[in-house]
Amino acid sequence: MALSFSVTHCDPSSKARCGVLETPHGAVHTPAFMPVGTYGAVKGMRAEDLEELGAQIILGNAYHLSERPGAARIEALGGVQAFMGWNKPVLTDSGGYQVFSLADRCEVDDDGVTFQSTLDGSYRRFTPESVVDIQAQLGSDIAMVLDECVGSPADRPAAEAAVRRTQDWAERSRAVADRLPGGLFGIVQGSVYADLRAAHAEQLTALDFDGYAIGGLAVGEGKEATWAALEIAAANLPEDKPRYVMGMGTPEDLVDGVARGVDMFDCVMPTRHARNGMAFTSEGRISVKNRAYADDDRPLDPACCCPTCRRYSRSYLRYLTVRGEMTASILLTWHNLFRYLDRMRCIRHAIAAEKFAEFRRKAAASVAESSD
Amino acid sequence: MALSFSVTHCDPSSKARCGVLETPHGAVHTPAFMPVGTYGAVKGMRAEDLEELGAQIILGNAYHLSERPGAARIEALGGVQAFMGWNKPVLTDSGGYQVFSLADRCEVDDDGVTFQSTLDGSYRRFTPESVVDIQAQLGSDIAMVLDECVGSPADRPAAEAAVRRTQDWAERSRAVADRLPGGLFGIVQGSVYADLRAAHAEQLTALDFDGYAIGGLAVGEGKEATWAALEIAAANLPEDKPRYVMGMGTPEDLVDGVARGVDMFDCVMPTRHARNGMAFTSEGRISVKNRAYADDDRPLDPACCCPTCRRYSRSYLRYLTVRGEMTASILLTWHNLFRYLDRMRCIRHAIAAEKFAEFRRKAAASVAESSD
Repeated sequence: MALSFSVTHCDPSSKARCGVLETPHGAVHTPAFMPVGTYGAVKGMRAEDLEELGAQIILGNAYHLSERPGAARIEALGGVQAFMGWNKPVLTDSGGYQVFSLADRCEVDDDGVTFQSTLDGSYRRFTPESVVDIQAQLGSDIAMVLDECVGSPADRPAAEAAVRRTQDWAERSRAVADRLPGGLFGIVQGSVYADLRAAHAEQLTALDFDGYAIGGLAVGEGKEATWAALEIAAANLPEDKPRYVMGMGTPEDLVDGVARGVDMFDCVMPTRHARNGMAFTSEGRISVKNRAYADDDRPLDPACCCPTCRRYSRSYLRYLTVRGEMTASILLTWHNLFRYLDRMRCIRHAIAAEKFAEFRRKAAASVAESSD
Repeated sequence: MALSFSVTHCDPSSKARCGVLETPHGAVHTPAFMPVGTYGAVKGMRAEDLEELGAQIILGNAYHLSERPGAARIEALGGVQAFMGWNKPVLTDSGGYQVFSLADRCEVDDDGVTFQSTLDGSYRRFTPESVVDIQAQLGSDIAMVLDECVGSPADRPAAEAAVRRTQDWAERSRAVADRLPGGLFGIVQGSVYADLRAAHAEQLTALDFDGYAIGGLAVGEGKEATWAALEIAAANLPEDKPRYVMGMGTPEDLVDGVARGVDMFDCVMPTRHARNGMAFTSEGRISVKNRAYADDDRPLDPACCCPTCRRYSRSYLRYLTVRGEMTASILLTWHNLFRYLDRMRCIRHAIAAEKFAEFRRKAAASVAESSD
């Protein structure tokens, strides 16, 4: 098996744990946040910038990269890591979510899914096996199975059908996992139905994946339903494999997810919000365009020690953001990613020092205070 | 006087020289290239990136900065350097060129110029004194006088009138130079007319500025006319003051300008071209979008040791550029600015080592070779 995972510390007060995930391109210390580089670049960042920020692993999208520049081309160039100039692990999303949510037309059958390319409108066919093959060509350290995503709300028959198909596809994916240079993760579906989540987690576990993602969350079901579904799924996944909750979440979600046993996260929020002039600070989210900052010479977040906060004023950042200067997106992306990655570092240290309960209490108190 | 300039080496084979220009925010080793940050940021770069590239001084535009965020605001925030997080020298263009070329309406009289703001269409009035005052508020290390720019071609009477007015305004600017925290440069006009250039350079010299810019060049008059006008202007400027040719040029122009006695350059080409997918390489300019690069795993310029060339392939840069990814603009800006700044470093070393003639010959041969 190309991946190995070992749990190094368990928090006595929650399901939180620290671990090390070994991949072909190096180790990932968990819990970890993965910056999103859907198209092969984290927008506004260079690979060396991500290294400086302490990113350990980044996310790419197998579907988009297979459209352009093409999986065969990336394979010929030495794999997605060499292509991106990023000599560390890359996890690729299968692209199933994009196919189901973005494709102009999308017809799913038991064998796979046919859809119109977002690039040129011609038809594409994805099967569980072809999606593994694409990720093998990309050379992903961690590949994701093709799954069927249902929206929210999903009625029970639709959620059941999606679980059935996702499990069937997971079996077929697992059968060809040895084509991959790295590991393969299964994806738990089941919408908000606790029994479906529990049963699917068990069925997937029986297939012995390198890790397990929990999919179809944070798609509009509401916070309570998210945590309930996550808890039941996590409780039915093996302790000795990493758990990854897809596409989530806020800085608060990171703490709450870790407390429920999540080891890996990805989310576009820190990078996308940065480009829209929104910054995560120790006192909550702020819109950098706020007129009140026009003459404010303080850093974005006086409590933050990221390169942006060490050097630039709110006034300058507001001015650049209002002008739509590229440099504004860059400076805010540095800040927001620093916040996310630094939070994960703090979480890992807190768990290792057996102080996670205290960390979590303080984080929650700080959120409550800033929303007063 | 807030600036001091000393010539440290003179090339025996040409007018090239090395010098040190001391400003309130530190020394500039000349010949120097100044990256352009018209609106208070070099597009796609952070101040720390410019430092890493070895930029010594950057350019801002007094007119644009006075429109937004406003000169009084920048003054209250500690000056343009503090505002930008750039603790090194800043030269501000007066904005005269922008007023004459961009403003919707522009009426010039002997006392100053009235024009419609590019921001909101309301009327603005610039006089030589008000433009000095704006740059005093900005806290520029080097301020530029308001001059009258004529286009190209300019007939002789128009060029004569512009010289007369520019000289009159230069006298008035010089009279209030002590309002500035830094130095003030005069600007030689005279279009392509050798006698006008010579006479104006002499008249300006009599006013004893901290340095002298040569304006109105590279605006379509043709290379030969540019060099002829530059040579005659430079020959009539004092040896002990820096000479700055505005808005120029290509990497080849840097060498040829230095050979004619130019100490300072600025140009948008390296940054603007980068955003359009154009890279300066040791073998000439290349369009990164070229289809031939799709599978090319070599660096943009195998002879270049910039961070972009040390890490990324043509294939990746082409892909990001075609996709319009912000990261492409950033990586190419790093490369192009590195080329310009590294070229200036090489020029300085060559002059100091008394090898500038050889350097120039090799540079010219390399251009001839790459255009074969």
